[in-house]
Amino acid sequence: MKLYTYFRSSAAYRVRIALNLKGLAYEAVPVHLLRKGGEQLQPAYRAINPAAMLPSLEDDGGATLTQSVAIIEYLDETHPATPLLPPDPLGRARVRSLALTVACDIHPLGNLRVLKYLVHELKASDDAKAAWSRHWIAEGFAALEAMLAGSPHTGRFCHGDTPTLADCCLVPQVFNALRFEVDLTRFPTISRIHAACSELDAFIAAHPSKQLDSE
Amino acid sequence: MKLYTYFRSSAAYRVRIALNLKGLAYEAVPVHLLRKGGEQLQPAYRAINPAAMLPSLEDDGGATLTQSVAIIEYLDETHPATPLLPPDPLGRARVRSLALTVACDIHPLGNLRVLKYLVHELKASDDAKAAWSRHWIAEGFAALEAMLAGSPHTGRFCHGDTPTLADCCLVPQVFNALRFEVDLTRFPTISRIHAACSELDAFIAAHPSKQLDSE
Repeated sequence: MKLYTYFRSSAAYRVRIALNLKGLAYEAVPVHLLRKGGEQLQPAYRAINPAAMLPSLEDDGGATLTQSVAIIEYLDETHPATPLLPPDPLGRARVRSLALTVACDIHPLGNLRVLKYLVHELKASDDAKAAWSRHWIAEGFAALEAMLAGSPHTGRFCHGDTPTLADCCLVPQVFNALRFEVDLTRFPTISRIHAACSELDAFIAAHPSKQLDSE
Repeated sequence: MKLYTYFRSSAAYRVRIALNLKGLAYEAVPVHLLRKGGEQLQPAYRAINPAAMLPSLEDDGGATLTQSVAIIEYLDETHPATPLLPPDPLGRARVRSLALTVACDIHPLGNLRVLKYLVHELKASDDAKAAWSRHWIAEGFAALEAMLAGSPHTGRFCHGDTPTLADCCLVPQVFNALRFEVDLTRFPTISRIHAACSELDAFIAAHPSKQLDSE
C-alpha cells in the first residue's frame, strides 16, 4: 500500500495510526503542502485525488481511496484483525460520532486552505487567525469532553480499553491543539486518553516528528 | 424513533432522507436554530447532545445518537433493507468518500456558528459572508464533480442506480448551494444526480419546505 501523506497533515496522521494499529506495512509518499505553491494542488496529485487534499491511499490492488475516515473504515473491513470499531451497532455509532466530531466539527475549520482564505480574502491578522483556530478546537473539545466524561463506555481509550477510529482522530487533533497552545487542562478526559495513546508504538510511530518528511 | 431536527439544517435533512428511503417512521422534534438565542444552545438540548448541534436521533431503545453520517451508518446496520452502502468494500469506501467530501470539506464551513463568527469576530460584511459560503461550496463541488464524472461507478445516482449515503449528503448541499446562488451549470453531473433524486418521494418528503417547522 502507498500512502500520500504530509508529516503535519492531521488527516494523514489518522490513517498512519490506523495502519500501524493494524500492523500494515505501507510506503509513505510525501506531498508537501507548502512547497511549490502546494504540491497537493498540482496536476500530478490532482490526477490521484481530484479534491487536492491529503491523504490518499493506493491499495495493493491499485485502487485509490480518499477521505481519511472512509480509508480507515475500508482498512477495518478488509483487515478485520485489531478492529477499530466495536462489534455492536450502538458502540459503532458512538465511535463514529466521536470521530466525526473531530473530522467534521473541528478539523475542517483549521485546515490550511481555510487559514489562507482568512488571511488573503478576509485580511485576518496573525492574532485573529490563531484565535480562530483556538476557538474551534476549544469549542469542539468541550463537546468531546462532555461526550467522553459523561459516558460509561469511555475506558482507557475513547471507547473501551482498546484504541478505535475515535482515538485515531482525537490524537492528531490534540497535536494541533498543542501547536495552537489551546489550554488542555479544561479537557481532563481528552488529556488522559491522549496520554494513554501516546504510550503505544502505533501512535508513537505515526507522530509527525517521526515521519521521513518531518522538518 | 425521534429526530431532533430543523427544517433548514443540512445535516438533519440528510437523516430525514435516509429514514424515508428506509421507510422508517419517526417523530420530528423541531429545534429552532435562530429563536431564543438558538434552542440548540440551551441546557435542555445540550442534555440530549452536548455538542449542541443537529440532528440527534433517539432510537426505539432510548439511546441517543449524534452526527448525521454516524446516524445513517447506524440505520443502515440496524435496518439493512434498502441498503445505503454498496456490499463491496471498495464501493463502500467510494460512497463514504463522496459523503465525507460534503460532510467534512464543504458543509462545516457554511455552518451557522461559523457564519456568525465571521460577522461578529472578523467583522465580515454580508457580501464577504456570502462569498465565503459560495467559495467553499464551489471548491467542494469541483472536487465532487471530478470524482463523479471521472468514475465508471457513477450511475443514475452517485454510486450506481440506487441512492446511497452519498446522495443523502449531496442533495442537502445542493439545496444550500441554490440558496447561496452558486452557479451549478459548472457541475453537470451533480445537477443531473440532484434532479434524479428530486423525483423520489423519499427526497421530496425530506425537503425543508415540507417540514412541520418550515417557515
